Amino acid sequence: MILIDGVVASAVPVDDRGLTYGDGVFRTLVLRDGRPEFWPQHYARLTADCRALGITPPALAALTDDLNQLAIASAHGAVRIIVTRGSSARGYAIDPAQPSRRIVSIGALPRYPDRYRERGVCVRYCALRLAAQPRLAGVKHLNRLENVLARAEWTDTAIAEGLLLDADNLVIEGTRCNVFIVERGALVTPDLSHCGVAGVTRTLIMEAAFRHDVQCWVQPITQARLESANEVFLVNSLIGVWPVAAVGDRTWSMFTTASLVGKWLHALRSATH
Amino acid sequence: MILIDGVVASAVPVDDRGLTYGDGVFRTLVLRDGRPEFWPQHYARLTADCRALGITPPALAALTDDLNQLAIASAHGAVRIIVTRGSSARGYAIDPAQPSRRIVSIGALPRYPDRYRERGVCVRYCALRLAAQPRLAGVKHLNRLENVLARAEWTDTAIAEGLLLDADNLVIEGTRCNVFIVERGALVTPDLSHCGVAGVTRTLIMEAAFRHDVQCWVQPITQARLESANEVFLVNSLIGVWPVAAVGDRTWSMFTTASLVGKWLHALRSATH
Repeated sequence: MILIDGVVASAVPVDDRGLTYGDGVFRTLVLRDGRPEFWPQHYARLTADCRALGITPPALAALTDDLNQLAIASAHGAVRIIVTRGSSARGYAIDPAQPSRRIVSIGALPRYPDRYRERGVCVRYCALRLAAQPRLAGVKHLNRLENVLARAEWTDTAIAEGLLLDADNLVIEGTRCNVFIVERGALVTPDLSHCGVAGVTRTLIMEAAFRHDVQCWVQPITQARLESANEVFLVNSLIGVWPVAAVGDRTWSMFTTASLVGKWLHALRSATH
Repeated sequence: MILIDGVVASAVPVDDRGLTYGDGVFRTLVLRDGRPEFWPQHYARLTADCRALGITPPALAALTDDLNQLAIASAHGAVRIIVTRGSSARGYAIDPAQPSRRIVSIGALPRYPDRYRERGVCVRYCALRLAAQPRLAGVKHLNRLENVLARAEWTDTAIAEGLLLDADNLVIEGTRCNVFIVERGALVTPDLSHCGVAGVTRTLIMEAAFRHDVQCWVQPITQARLESANEVFLVNSLIGVWPVAAVGDRTWSMFTTASLVGKWLHALRSATH
């Protein structure tokens, strides 16, 4: 099911700036038992991302109505919310009076092997380097060619994800997830002020760490630092927490902290459900 | 008139990767007397840009048919050709079997004041700095948020264009055009191997300079170098050549070389028509 501005539809006008310029933002989240997981957090991020681009965010009530409509059609699924700057005449100039457009759709939840969560995933370093653009860093916008090109670097199905580095060879994120490393019990996650997407799950984990008196730092992470870490794990709204079992020759087999963080998220989901 | 894969239409499926990821390329060109200007050059660039992203370029015959259809509807206009990687399931991974999608549309030719060409335009430096991404540099792709944000920096209608600099403060391009400066009769245009779009008009001018024994260099251009130049001019398929009359406090009033280059383009248009 796809709703465009609240109405069932399947196509967007060709002059939508999401198509012509990638001029919009998006979120991906889980609908379970008819309820969107971590919806307040997703809505807050969506709103912040819209503001970063000067796009009028959709009203909470409108999006909540959309999600309720989707939930009637399917109680479980992966929801994608796209907000574009709407339609416009040609040219990059913005008409502030132009209403934004929201596109809310639901698909099947991706089915990942249980072993990804239990025994970890194999990842690789991508050759593509993320460009530094402070004006867009952190924002989950629709200009995702870097992710597309990075994901196209491998076809080996044994590789579950690729790690993206910046031009200084610092680890920033995965193609579709955020990254944490564990050093002597403390969590460390990369700085996203120059590139990368600041996901909701990353923030939830940082906040949970604080509540559980586990140190969590935002610091530069080189490949050497990542490979020296006690654990590495990947997070996003759909996968939850995936421990990393291998990158190149470096392997890990103890996932104590990743498991703990997975339990924090599970508890948060239950508490807000 | 809008043609999607050769059929009159007005909307694209919501799962088109042009919308979800900006995963595509585009061209803008002039249709005059029913004929697309510099079509072989535009088709060559479109094909090269598709290849840079691993997108299957549309066949020349298919696009030529599209342009002929448009020309029946309106003999003059601004044509936009978008080629996206087509529709796909969620996720950044590419299905090589997925056909690309072409979206060809025509609108009115923009009407610019004659004085822009005759007496030059006022421009400004944008605050936004272009990010360096060698994998995308030169390509006219659909990830254009930098252009949108840069164009949103000014509303003063006396400013016809904004100049974009990179993180090293080198002048790269305008928000929708390429830039040349003139130094003692020689043309200089910025290197676009790290960011910027390599337009067809820029290449036509470089080739024409060669034929006319006018030196043309690709070199780094600082703001100081630009302001020390004898002339500065902007080029693209729609505007042709606009001399720059002012940037900040620096003004120019002699546009000898810009006029000459405008005549080269005019002669090329007539010759290929």
